[in-house]
Formats: sequence, structure tokens, C-alpha cells
Amino acid sequence: MTPFQLSEELLEQVIVDIASQNDKALQTLFKEYHYADLAEIFDALQIEQAVYLFKLIDSEKTADMLTELDEDVRESILDALSSEEIATEINELDTDDAVDIVAELPMEIQKEVIDQISDTEHADDIRELLTYNENSAGGLMAKELVCVNQNWTVTRCVREMRVQAQEVTRVHSIYVVDDQNVLLGRLSLKDLLTANEKSKIASVYIPKVDYVQVDIDGEEVAKIMSKYDLEAIPVVNDSKQLVGRITIDDIVDLIKDEAEKDYQLAAGISSDVEADDSIIQLTKARLPWLVLGLIGGLGSVFILEGFESFMNHPSYKALFFFTPLIAAMAGNVGVQSSAIIVQGLANDVVKGSLLNRLLKEVGLGLINGGALALLVVLFGVATQQPTVVSLTIALSMLCVIIVSALIGTFVPIVLNRRGIDPAIATGPFITTSNDIFGIFLFFYIAKWLLV
Amino acid sequence: MTPFQLSEELLEQVIVDIASQNDKALQTLFKEYHYADLAEIFDALQIEQAVYLFKLIDSEKTADMLTELDEDVRESILDALSSEEIATEINELDTDDAVDIVAELPMEIQKEVIDQISDTEHADDIRELLTYNENSAGGLMAKELVCVNQNWTVTRCVREMRVQAQEVTRVHSIYVVDDQNVLLGRLSLKDLLTANEKSKIASVYIPKVDYVQVDIDGEEVAKIMSKYDLEAIPVVNDSKQLVGRITIDDIVDLIKDEAEKDYQLAAGISSDVEADDSIIQLTKARLPWLVLGLIGGLGSVFILEGFESFMNHPSYKALFFFTPLIAAMAGNVGVQSSAIIVQGLANDVVKGSLLNRLLKEVGLGLINGGALALLVVLFGVATQQPTVVSLTIALSMLCVIIVSALIGTFVPIVLNRRGIDPAIATGPFITTSNDIFGIFLFFYIAKWLLV
Repeated sequence: MTPFQLSEELLEQVIVDIASQNDKALQTLFKEYHYADLAEIFDALQIEQAVYLFKLIDSEKTADMLTELDEDVRESILDALSSEEIATEINELDTDDAVDIVAELPMEIQKEVIDQISDTEHADDIRELLTYNENSAGGLMAKELVCVNQNWTVTRCVREMRVQAQEVTRVHSIYVVDDQNVLLGRLSLKDLLTANEKSKIASVYIPKVDYVQVDIDGEEVAKIMSKYDLEAIPVVNDSKQLVGRITIDDIVDLIKDEAEKDYQLAAGISSDVEADDSIIQLTKARLPWLVLGLIGGLGSVFILEGFESFMNHPSYKALFFFTPLIAAMAGNVGVQSSAIIVQGLANDVVKGSLLNRLLKEVGLGLINGGALALLVVLFGVATQQPTVVSLTIALSMLCVIIVSALIGTFVPIVLNRRGIDPAIATGPFITTSNDIFGIFLFFYIAKWLLV
Repeated sequence: MTPFQLSEELLEQVIVDIASQNDKALQTLFKEYHYADLAEIFDALQIEQAVYLFKLIDSEKTADMLTELDEDVRESILDALSSEEIATEINELDTDDAVDIVAELPMEIQKEVIDQISDTEHADDIRELLTYNENSAGGLMAKELVCVNQNWTVTRCVREMRVQAQEVTRVHSIYVVDDQNVLLGRLSLKDLLTANEKSKIASVYIPKVDYVQVDIDGEEVAKIMSKYDLEAIPVVNDSKQLVGRITIDDIVDLIKDEAEKDYQLAAGISSDVEADDSIIQLTKARLPWLVLGLIGGLGSVFILEGFESFMNHPSYKALFFFTPLIAAMAGNVGVQSSAIIVQGLANDVVKGSLLNRLLKEVGLGLINGGALALLVVLFGVATQQPTVVSLTIALSMLCVIIVSALIGTFVPIVLNRRGIDPAIATGPFITTSNDIFGIFLFFYIAKWLLV
């Protein structure tokens, strides 16, 4: 299979069928579509068309599709539905997806929708999940899981499991609890099938089981599940009672979003936007960083004004021509250093003391900066610069590179220690501050050497 | 649970126990450790210590640990083992992990090791997997899967499945094939358990099944599995014969690596390095981009020399002070635009024609650039610049921002169309070329307006 690609022709046909209210054709057309593909078609329609089509298609499919839609399209469609209609959709979803959608609704609608969910147990589960922080294990987990009591016999266990399994898309693991719902361990299907029918579960279960607390950070859950190759992990509360389960598919999205967010921050894009978002959304995400860059740039204007006297000297004038190069090197080195630290922090490979790490950067700066300084000297010879000017430029660039590497390393580590996302330091923030420091240092050292 | 953190004390104790050959203590200590945690300890040891410890621990655990080690540590340990010892480790691994390790061995050792694998079927599977491109579906898949023939009865099917399931860590799905091993569909456990024992599988299986071709790109597989929330997908050859299976845990690593690689490229780091790699490895990954930046920076030196006459004019001199600001804005805008396009291409949301996309960037550039130009004019008023100079700077900056946004959009789209990874365009490449274009454009427009 290849992933579905929405063609112009298909979209055209859907729009024509909607306009002519050709309901039969539309229903037949979409019978075979995966909900993720259907979502792509909905994202491409006008809102009125999308709402019309939405009401035609079975809620078993539209419910899952809702979770895949662009946020603004989903919001518009839900806006056009009654709370009873929304409740019908929510009723079809697993609790983790259901709560994500309910949480996006306006407060006053949330209660109305939940009260109209026909399955009252499902409604209670959603109410409970709404109480957790959306970035915690509780915000990721679903209530659907297969769980048996240690005092049951094998026969009763199999009977109860059959009922529970109908609610659960993928079983993964069978969890064992005591009468107080405290997580004790897990059950292997193989052991269950080979055990004597009258044995108690207590005598066949495996007491070793990985689990997470309901309030730990979602990113931490992602780290644990990907490190230990887990496909599902049970979630417990402070009394170690089993309250939910997180599956790998939710973690895949989280890992992807997390990596993309770091990358976007590094590129100076502050909120989660995509190429097909509106100009206004894109401006909101981009302009603040550009303003920061502008303010930093105006800082460098002041610094250069301070060294204006160099301009009047025929040899030293060359220093001004090298300013953009120095600023660029300071920025590039700072971004490299900070990106390596940010990824290292995310993957837990930044070990040893801050001092050791900074010393390593000095070493790196000496090697890289030394090689680049040599190139600058060669360039100076080739273009017949006065030797003292070439050497000054090369030497002060070397200093700028080392200092930039140190700033690029120091800032994310310190931010991380203070509980601030270090990725914020990899983008325009480090480029801009390194530009200013770099230009100042360059002229300051040059002045000291030449005057 | 919280993920394991290697403490100084534990490491110290392990090193002491190795030095005093306290084998019993070491074996007891590591009995309960997960192989992923064990790998962290091994990564922190000296090679001779690691090899000593490796031979003490059961190959059932060390085999899995090998897959989690840093590449250089793994290489050193394997170097110290005989091909027979390596074969024992390989024999414990699933075929997909086994082939990854075998592929890293020197060519002449590969054959020796495979020939000594005790399970000849396992050896044949590894030989087959070695023939696939490591970045294709064939390079990701394992041979372990549960597969039944459509002509079997339910009774025979259950019997055969029991045998096959022993080889497979997680069953996920049961695939149905014909006598030529052509993939026909899948079997639901529920249907199997409720079917008449004498029924043929042909009458109970589900003919609808997702699959991928063995030669498609691994990234494509990742997209399909994460889009359609699949936990496993069968792999077929050109004749639609079932040749293997890819599971979600391998895809999680791929998605993470892919996102991290894009981020590293954006930061100007060319090969996959981590914070704890050596200075030499880090220099290799960083220096080439810095040299590129230097060459670009030298280009801007020439451009500025060309506009040297401005320096002698008391008002126009200010243009030189603004050069780093212009270069920074050109770089920042270019990186933002290209990052959005690169992520959009990765997520398939870059739709519509190239012209439309460029027009959108012009709109974005006008809004962002307009706001920033206004700030520059206000700054000019505040610092009592000549009005004509302020306006010139503001106007030419606006042009630079629009052009930078266009370059940042155009380059990755064109690279992508030519089959080159567009992420290469988001880092120093775009910053450097936008620096040069930006500075040239700035002075060129200023000259045109002022002179």
C-alpha cells in the first residue's frame, strides 16, 4: 500500500456531489475509506460542505476521523453540531481520544455533551480523565484495559476477560489487581491457557510489571516506553491503584510532536504551526522571534557606532567589512553547541559536570576556530590585507568562536536546571545574543591589539 | 517506575568488582537489570572492563543489550569476541536485530559468524535480510511472524500457531497465505476461537489487510504506520509473497532519528553525533558547515568592499552599522520559512502550486517585514537619524525580508523535487546565502534610493 493522496479530481467530485446533494453516491464513495484519509478530504472542504458530509457518514467512522482533523476544522464542525450529536460521536471513541475532543469544547458545552453520552460508565470515565493535566500520564491514558482480580479462578478470569476485551481495541497485557484495585502484576496469555481451570490467578500471575504514576510528565512516559520497548504501560495513582493504560500509538505522536517542537523553536517558530496554516497564524508564530532579532540587531548598531573611529583609518576599515562574517560565525557556532546540548538533554546523554562540558567546548572551539582562523589568514594573504589586520581578525574570530560555543553550551544547561525548556535557547535567542557578544568582542579585541 | 539513572556509586562498585574479579557479586547484581539499563553501564566502562563483564553475563541478556549500546562500544566488544561467541549472541536475537549487528561486522567475519549460528533456519533468514537495503522496508522487517495457510482447518491452524508463536515476541496479527505464500489476508483471534474446528481458514479469514512492498523506503513505512495507527505491518515481494513483518517499536526509533536528523541539519551538524561523542567526531560533524559559513562570510566582505564609498559619507555611514542587523534578519526569516516547508514536506501538508506558496510568503513577508520596518523607522526617529536614511534602511530591509522568505521557501521545495533531502537547506546553507543576498540587496537598494 501507499499512503492515500488526495487528488484534485476526487476533491472536485466530492464538492460536486455535495452541491447536488447526491447523498447515495457520497455514502458509497466513503464506505471503504480509512478515517485518516477521510480527514484529509474534510480538511480540504469548506466548512458548510464538511458539515453536510459529516452528517451523511456513519458516526462509527466520523468519530475516529474527528481525532485526525486539523484543529480549526474540528472546531468548526463541532460548532455546527448539537451537543446530542457530539455525544453520539464521543460515545464511539476510546476514552483517551474522547477526552481530548471534549477538552477542546467550550466549558458550558462540555457538561451538556457528557451528560448526553448514552453509556454512563463511559461518561464517568471521561469525567475522571478531564481532571488530569493533559501533559501528564493521566492526560495520555485511556480507561479501556483488561484487568483481572487475583482471587478469581482461571475459569472466571477467562469469562470476565471476554467481556472486557470487547471494549478494548488491542489487549496488549492483562493486568492483575487485588480487591482494592491495587496493581499486583500481569498475566501471560500462555500461562493462563495452560493453567488448571480451578487455579487462582494469584498462583499464576507474574508479579513483575512496569508502571507509571498518573501525575508524571508525558515526555517521561515517552522516554520510558521507547527505552524499554513497551507497547503499553499501566498507570497507577498514589495508592498504586490501577487507573488507566497508555499505548504506544499515543506515544508515537508525542515523540514526533516533541522533536518537531524542538526543531521549530530552533528555527524561531514559537507555536505549533504547519505550512498550510493561515498567514495570520504563521505571523503570530514567527513575528515575535523576528522582533527579538531586530532588537538584538539594533544593539549591534550601537556597538558599531561605538567603534566608528576605525572607519576613518584606511587599514582598520577592513574590520567593518568582516562584521557580518564574525556575526555569522558566532551565530553558527552557538546554534551547533546548543543543539547538541538540547538533544543530549532530551536523550539523557549530557553527563559529567558543567565545568567539564565547558572545557570540552573550549577544546572544540580551539580546533574549529583555529582551522577557520588559518583560512582567514590565508584569505588575507591572497587579498593583500595588511598582515597585522589579518592576524587581528583571525585571532579575535578565534576568541569569538570559543566564547560563542561556551554561551551555546552554558545557556541551555542552565535553563534546563531551572526547569525551562532548553530548546528555547537554540534558535534566534542564541543567534542574536551571540551576534551582539561576537561583534563587541571582535572590535574590543581588535582595538586592544591594533591601537 | 522512573527510568534507570546510572549513579557514580554503582559505576564505582562495578569497576571495583571487575578489578577484583568478584564474578559472583557481578552476576547477582545484574540479574534484575533490564538490558537497556545494562547498556548504559557498559557504555560507561573501559573496553577491557566491558568485555570482562560481557562474558560473565548470560547471552540471553547481553544479546539484547548489544542492540542498545553506543556503536563504538559495540564494535569494540564484538572485536574482542570470537566469531563463535558472536554467533551465540546473534542466535538469541530476533532476525531484524540480528541482521543490524551482523551488517556492522567486517565482511570477512560476517560469513564466519552466520555459518556458526546453531539454528540454520535463523541463519538463512539473516542471510536473506542482509540482501535488502538497510533503509528499505526489507531492512527494517523481521522474519518472525505468525502465518497460516488458507487450506488448513481451524484445528491444524491452532496447532501450527502454537509452534510459531514461541519464536515471536509479540504476535500482533495472524497472516493468511496460499500455497505459494502469497498474502491473502489476516485472521482475527476472536473468529478463530469461535469457528467450527473443521472449518477451513479460507472461510473465516478477513481478506482486507494493509501491507507494504519490501523495497519501499523506511520513512514511507513510518508514515503509513503512524498515519493509520498500525502496530505491525506485513511486508511482501513483487509477487505479493509474504517475506516479513515490521513492528511499531522499530518505527518509533526511526521517527525519532528522522526528526533529530532534520534538527541537526538545521543546526549545521552533518552526521549523527551526541553530546558525549569525542571532540574529533564532533569536529567532523561541525567544521564543514563552519567552513561553508566562513566562505559565505568572505563573500560578504567583497560585497561590503564594493560599497566602500558609503563609508566616507557622514550620513550614509549608518548603513554599515545596520549590516549585521540586515544579515541577521535575512538569516532568521530564511530559516523560519525553510523549516516550515521542510516539516510540511515531511508531513505531506505542502499542497498547491509552487507559485501559490511563494505568493503566500510574499504576503507573510509584507506583514512581518512591514511591522519590523515600522520599528526601524521609530528607532531612527528616536536616535535622530536623517529621515531619508531611516526610510531607506526600513524599505530595503522590507525587500530583504521578502526575498529571504522566498529563498527559504523555494530552495527546499526544489531540492525535494530533485530527490535531495530538503532539511539540508534549513541550516547554515540558507543562513549563509541569505546573509550574502541580503547584504547585497540592502546596499544595492540603498544606493539606488540615496545616490
